[in-house]
Amino acid sequence: MGLVQDFNAYRSKMNDKIAEADNLIIKRIFNLDTNAYSEGHLSIKSKELIGLTCSLVLRCDDCVKYHLGKCKEAGFTTEEIHEAMGVATLIGGTIVIPHLRRAFEFWEELGHV
Amino acid sequence: MGLVQDFNAYRSKMNDKIAEADNLIIKRIFNLDTNAYSEGHLSIKSKELIGLTCSLVLRCDDCVKYHLGKCKEAGFTTEEIHEAMGVATLIGGTIVIPHLRRAFEFWEELGHV
Amino acid sequence: MGLVQDFNAYRSKMNDKIAEADNLIIKRIFNLDTNAYSEGHLSIKSKELIGLTCSLVLRCDDCVKYHLGKCKEAGFTTEEIHEAMGVATLIGGTIVIPHLRRAFEFWEELGHV
Amino acid sequence: MGLVQDFNAYRSKMNDKIAEADNLIIKRIFNLDTNAYSEGHLSIKSKELIGLTCSLVLRCDDCVKYHLGKCKEAGFTTEEIHEAMGVATLIGGTIVIPHLRRAFEFWEELGHV
Amino acid sequence: MGLVQDFNAYRSKMNDKIAEADNLIIKRIFNLDTNAYSEGHLSIKSKELIGLTCSLVLRCDDCVKYHLGKCKEAGFTTEEIHEAMGVATLIGGTIVIPHLRRAFEFWEELGHV
Amino acid sequence: MGLVQDFNAYRSKMNDKIAEADNLIIKRIFNLDTNAYSEGHLSIKSKELIGLTCSLVLRCDDCVKYHLGKCKEAGFTTEEIHEAMGVATLIGGTIVIPHLRRAFEFWEELGHV
Repeated sequence: MGLVQDFNAYRSKMNDKIAEADNLIIKRIFNLDTNAYSEGHLSIKSKELIGLTCSLVLRCDDCVKYHLGKCKEAGFTTEEIHEAMGVATLIGGTIVIPHLRRAFEFWEELGHV
Repeated sequence: MGLVQDFNAYRSKMNDKIAEADNLIIKRIFNLDTNAYSEGHLSIKSKELIGLTCSLVLRCDDCVKYHLGKCKEAGFTTEEIHEAMGVATLIGGTIVIPHLRRAFEFWEELGHV
Repeated sequence: MGLVQDFNAYRSKMNDKIAEADNLIIKRIFNLDTNAYSEGHLSIKSKELIGLTCSLVLRCDDCVKYHLGKCKEAGFTTEEIHEAMGVATLIGGTIVIPHLRRAFEFWEELGHV
Repeated sequence: MGLVQDFNAYRSKMNDKIAEADNLIIKRIFNLDTNAYSEGHLSIKSKELIGLTCSLVLRCDDCVKYHLGKCKEAGFTTEEIHEAMGVATLIGGTIVIPHLRRAFEFWEELGHV
Repeated sequence: MGLVQDFNAYRSKMNDKIAEADNLIIKRIFNLDTNAYSEGHLSIKSKELIGLTCSLVLRCDDCVKYHLGKCKEAGFTTEEIHEAMGVATLIGGTIVIPHLRRAFEFWEELGHV
Repeated sequence: MGLVQDFNAYRSKMNDKIAEADNLIIKRIFNLDTNAYSEGHLSIKSKELIGLTCSLVLRCDDCVKYHLGKCKEAGFTTEEIHEAMGVATLIGGTIVIPHLRRAFEFWEELGHV
């Protein structure tokens, strides 16, 4: 249970510090990052699926955790998430497996929050 | 127009040679690769969206071309493809832009085949 | 000493959960991963050397740890492991060095288990 | 000599097509990309040095070519460019060497344009 | 405060063990790594800027921490560091953001040591 | 047949230009690269196997071609090369497949030179 709260707390704390730094390039990247995942030609679910699987093949644990949280909110089932991560592991190779383990653990925790 | 045919011809020729080599590990990877994109908990469209965007952030031109062809068959509109590739470019950074150029060119060619 | 046990315990626990999830794509990847490192045209030692060095250039700490354990079982000497990791660091660049540090630590721990 | 013109012509043609597509996310990334390299807390030369070396370690030939052109305009000497690319090759490893070859060729061509 | 000392202590301890191992390839890489960042055609500041941003786009937290320490010694201001990291995040994409958070935290800690 | 000669000719021409540039860091990397693959604690065959598979998972076509040539000289059979590349494709994922196609083509050409 602590896994999800710890992740959110650190992310939140550091995002605040980054915002305070007031660097123009970074602010615009963060702003674009927020807007890009809203409904457009593609649904929010499709965009979160992209966010999750791209994060997994690029092997970024924190990005995977963030998008798993968003996928939960968007209503994905456990079977759909497992399948999406299976396809991503096939694309990215067995090198993705350690990240898959941590993603499974985080997804399970999200179900208990 | 030649872009699509050239890509398909080389891919086909080399896949045949790889199949002839009859290596067990490679055969099983190819077999799994074929099956993974069929309808399951996720639709074919969702899986092709994963294939396209993961290929783009991993900056594999040939993989992008292959999945663009499959996305065309699956019925994605040009607006949807552009948006999916926009999200992938945001995730993968400006380093993805040269691959985005080639993807735009290939997608346009697919419309003329 | 705890380093090796902790790694094995978490890996084992999460592999069980992943197996329970019973996703077809993931199961086939895990199955292929197990079979690929058995004796074939190449010896087990050659395959573990591939596993270790590819994991190092791809900078996957957990994959490196796993293959270091397998290399120990396969009978590699410390001098051979250091040399293999030296070649991998040359290929992958100084960006590999932090992973090399953790690999040295894990290999030493393996000698005390 | 044709190397530089070919690169610029294709880049220009495809950037126009991407602009016509009028996708909001892509337009904002391109816009930010243009602004990010202007004078700020860091000089244009410092930013182009970042652009060149990050492109090289990420092994993006087209990005390297683009920033070599910008580095030429910004007044870098050949010795400085070689040294910067040397440091980048050390960081990224011998896997960068094929890209270094193409970068040397393009830099030489830039001197004849 | 402990963040900086912990990083330095582990780095130091493991570098000693790696030196003791006396592997010729590794020793030459470490030696070259030390020499490459000294004054040459480019200033030490320019080289540290390369080191920092290449480490960030390659998403190596330990390499980022090391070069942040060197950038501090070399006299970079906080505004310059933020801008450099902003450009690197644009190049490497939003996948870099979790590493940016940890870099911001480490840079702040460096100011308190 | 032209594939092998073209590759060698360009590589040779550009290596000469890079040598003429006389940059100290680059010269030392090239020198170390030459020495690292000679007989040591590991055999030349083991080192070339590392070079080939690491190049493949890092998806560097030119590096793969170079090491395929060296593997040919070192006496590897076609079955061994296919198996090594199969393991590398499993590690690196289906994203490696386009590079595998080009590697198969180059290995075949090497048999006709």
